[in-house]
Amino acid sequence: MPEATPSNSTIFDQREREAVYRVIAERRDMRHFKPDSTIAPDVLLRMLGAAHQAPSVGLMQPWRFIRISDTALRGAIADLVEQERLLTAKALGGRQDEFLSLKVEGVRECAELFVVALAPDDGTVFGRRTMPREMAVSSVACAIQNLWLASRAENLGLGWVSMFEPAELGALLKLPEGSQALAILCLGPVDSFYIQPMLREEHWRDAVSLDTLCFDNHWPDQPRDKVD
Amino acid sequence: MPEATPSNSTIFDQREREAVYRVIAERRDMRHFKPDSTIAPDVLLRMLGAAHQAPSVGLMQPWRFIRISDTALRGAIADLVEQERLLTAKALGGRQDEFLSLKVEGVRECAELFVVALAPDDGTVFGRRTMPREMAVSSVACAIQNLWLASRAENLGLGWVSMFEPAELGALLKLPEGSQALAILCLGPVDSFYIQPMLREEHWRDAVSLDTLCFDNHWPDQPRDKVD
Repeated sequence: MPEATPSNSTIFDQREREAVYRVIAERRDMRHFKPDSTIAPDVLLRMLGAAHQAPSVGLMQPWRFIRISDTALRGAIADLVEQERLLTAKALGGRQDEFLSLKVEGVRECAELFVVALAPDDGTVFGRRTMPREMAVSSVACAIQNLWLASRAENLGLGWVSMFEPAELGALLKLPEGSQALAILCLGPVDSFYIQPMLREEHWRDAVSLDTLCFDNHWPDQPRDKVD
Repeated sequence: MPEATPSNSTIFDQREREAVYRVIAERRDMRHFKPDSTIAPDVLLRMLGAAHQAPSVGLMQPWRFIRISDTALRGAIADLVEQERLLTAKALGGRQDEFLSLKVEGVRECAELFVVALAPDDGTVFGRRTMPREMAVSSVACAIQNLWLASRAENLGLGWVSMFEPAELGALLKLPEGSQALAILCLGPVDSFYIQPMLREEHWRDAVSLDTLCFDNHWPDQPRDKVD
């Protein structure tokens, strides 16, 4: 396929391509970390640099990375997450006990804790006149996905914890009006990476196959919906 | 750093790590494509497989990929984008002419056109009791970022077009209630990848440095805000 080869830019070869597909396939949402471990500052900076290279709508770069180095603050964040974990359990009704038996976060044990916040809206119009919030949130998510893949390539775990009340976390971190925390990120060395996503390994939920989520030209009249 | 090496899982070596960082650094939002080109079906499937390996909150997998193979439908989508481009220009006020001189999408020329839609909410509570929409949108964005990196590794361009009125695109694609198109994706061979993000190359906007977006423990009292 000669037309697939750009003429004046750097080409990715087969070996590099395989590394990219492998990191995508082996990235996991980690909740088990090695306690009392660290991440070297240069590695951490390299990973954040990858996050910062994410696409953003209109180049607005709405991501803000807050490193939690204060031990008491980390404890307060862990308490917030625990509070939401119990509220989630209650909301789950019949699966409450099963849910409570899962390890859902590693906030206290991970080597590094970050909060990623959406910045207050800077009024960017380019590419987001009709979907301002969705596009800003998407840009932050792309940055986190970059960070996730970089972490895995560094053989480090990352867990995206979304069990928290954003207003309360925002107050704790003094986020300004219009800013919202979207992720608590647990980062650090792990003993091993889950073979499957942990929610599958623990039989919480099955994944569906790609073909059921691909349509031609329009939404099908009778989509093959997920069963759980 | 022995603690950074997981014992019983596959390790990424230096060469693989470099490939991952390189693909993250060289991914671009492409608007210029080679007309009359194609993507081999097995390559397309591999790329969609990478998207489908994205993380999703509570394993809800809310992404739906709609391949636009119908030429008339592609034309109707291009018209929708053009309509929004003109409305965006108007909303930009003083920079209207500058904006109109930019090439902002490659909907008509790209080899393959996809719409990625957020599925109707399936009621997943796990990890999204407090931020249901943000977390569903984030999961879709992570899938698109995976697809983007896979495309770049395949030496193919991808452009995320977000200039459209979601209700109108939804009607065109017969999306059900609760579903929302988040992206029109242009995919295909390109002559070359932009050296810098196109909005920087065209002097539309400068990017800010990472250090201005990293904070310690809380939002700073006087953040070094972006200037444009």
